[in-house]
Amino acid sequence: MQPQNIALEEVYRLADEALQNNGCDEQNANAVARTITRAERDGCASHGLFRLPGYLKALKSGKANGRADPKVEQLAPSVVRVDGDLGFAPLAHERGRSSLIELTRETGFAAQPIIRTHHFSALWAETEPLAEAGLAAFAFTAYMPSVAPAGGRKPFFGTNPLSFAWPRGDGAPPMVFDMATAAMARGEIMIAARDGHEVPAGAGVDADGAATTDPKAILGGAQLPFGGYKGSAIALMVELLSAGLMGEAFSDEAAARDNRDGGPPQGGELLIAIDPARFGDPEGWLEHSNQYLERLGALEGVRLPGDRRRTNRERIAKDGVSVPQTLLDDIAKLAGA
Amino acid sequence: MQPQNIALEEVYRLADEALQNNGCDEQNANAVARTITRAERDGCASHGLFRLPGYLKALKSGKANGRADPKVEQLAPSVVRVDGDLGFAPLAHERGRSSLIELTRETGFAAQPIIRTHHFSALWAETEPLAEAGLAAFAFTAYMPSVAPAGGRKPFFGTNPLSFAWPRGDGAPPMVFDMATAAMARGEIMIAARDGHEVPAGAGVDADGAATTDPKAILGGAQLPFGGYKGSAIALMVELLSAGLMGEAFSDEAAARDNRDGGPPQGGELLIAIDPARFGDPEGWLEHSNQYLERLGALEGVRLPGDRRRTNRERIAKDGVSVPQTLLDDIAKLAGA
Repeated sequence: MQPQNIALEEVYRLADEALQNNGCDEQNANAVARTITRAERDGCASHGLFRLPGYLKALKSGKANGRADPKVEQLAPSVVRVDGDLGFAPLAHERGRSSLIELTRETGFAAQPIIRTHHFSALWAETEPLAEAGLAAFAFTAYMPSVAPAGGRKPFFGTNPLSFAWPRGDGAPPMVFDMATAAMARGEIMIAARDGHEVPAGAGVDADGAATTDPKAILGGAQLPFGGYKGSAIALMVELLSAGLMGEAFSDEAAARDNRDGGPPQGGELLIAIDPARFGDPEGWLEHSNQYLERLGALEGVRLPGDRRRTNRERIAKDGVSVPQTLLDDIAKLAGA
Repeated sequence: MQPQNIALEEVYRLADEALQNNGCDEQNANAVARTITRAERDGCASHGLFRLPGYLKALKSGKANGRADPKVEQLAPSVVRVDGDLGFAPLAHERGRSSLIELTRETGFAAQPIIRTHHFSALWAETEPLAEAGLAAFAFTAYMPSVAPAGGRKPFFGTNPLSFAWPRGDGAPPMVFDMATAAMARGEIMIAARDGHEVPAGAGVDADGAATTDPKAILGGAQLPFGGYKGSAIALMVELLSAGLMGEAFSDEAAARDNRDGGPPQGGELLIAIDPARFGDPEGWLEHSNQYLERLGALEGVRLPGDRRRTNRERIAKDGVSVPQTLLDDIAKLAGA
């Protein structure tokens, strides 16, 4: 079956309507639909409409609160927390963002723990708006166990992504990266299993802990962190920052309390924002770092992180989004009120 | 020739005397000698006496200021900078540490840019004291170009280490990791070249950008980041945080202004400190995260980052440090007043 080509407005409408039909109030549905549309806009299909069935399942099971009313509370002079009220993360981010930006401009450096949300989106969509406001930003979040720590053979860490964004001045798109600390995205392994392809060495181990390129064996065994024991240490850091620090669930705890409805588990996230104008080089930092990024981007064979997303954005604005018919069918089936 | 076995007191005395004989005042010499001794104490020979010749060369050439008087200045409510006065980093860290700890306890979250120092030490020695004070901590620093960005073939990034430390409560050693963003330490590649051994695939490329396991070809070509394009993005993040943010030199700029005396170049560093007691779970965070680290450490085959250093520490306190005679000879030759 041919994939359907649909405009971004239609992506938004599809998501928003399905969410509102299944228990989201307008604010929550709009925020999730904006996040999904933003992902499709940049060609990041794995975090676009592909996630909508999971959101809907979490509403149907009652795990996520579709009428969440996230609250912002300052915990310390440089710490402003968002309590997501057990809703989906996008509204919690939208509610907390202006407080984090203001506090960072005031103090130079601030943190935003986000608790009690169900997180299912790409982190770049959360750091990029901070960099568009002129700040550098980090995001860290844990997930459900799927990655074996270096040396181990059983899933323990989540795929635990981290994102970093650096501002490039008025109107210029920030430099943004967003990476899972797993060697390979779980979705890619699932697609390889479905299609009967091998995955590259290093992606995971089978149930006995032996290295394998068989995606089905990895799904029954464990994924591996990127970069061996170094990536494993970074995955551990993400657990401590997004769970231990703020009284939220580590990946293994999140799995234990999840109802396995296929939607996102409840967990925490840490945002960090930095105002480069307050670090000693207020006049020079922007040109200095822009020149550096230009030197880097001019190297033969080198591409700046995030460049592909921006190329996609231009193409998709013109051509619309290609969505598999099976996904549209799944959504139609789940979306009925 | 047999390596010499010497006590930690003797390591300290050797370093302190050599530094004072070559233009360091007492405060600067003591601080560097403490840093070197701390590395040897934990079995981290690559950052122990091995670095003393480089420190001495930087004093002899006049590049580093042996009588540096680092100054601490608050730049914003959560940002306290150290200006190292062109000396070696250890005294700058010692001078700045209490201000960073105090500010973090006050605000919950604080940053310390460190500029105008010559840095030649392990980052764990800088984050661990913050975690011993009950804070979580990051450190980031760039260096001289030796690593090709993912896709490239010429050295551009430094080996750009990052460290993270997490406190484990009164008297318990913190969880600390410290990793270069290069796939392999440059020192190990140099030793393999000297001894005629191959290095593992992925460590670097030759001058034409072709993958190789010949360490000499890599030293004439470029090292590679750990973990492919993900490690490369982290190396870029370290450049932006330790140079762009604070008006210090990116790795390529640091190399351009260095006099190539073999000692450490001038550069910047960023420390971040977090008070977990101010993030919403003041009563629970310590036990919660300690239990998690215990679950992780109990997994078959898994070792917590930093465990090896602590095992070394116990052994070396009893047995002393094994130092190659050739290194002691080099030091003796350089150390004469």
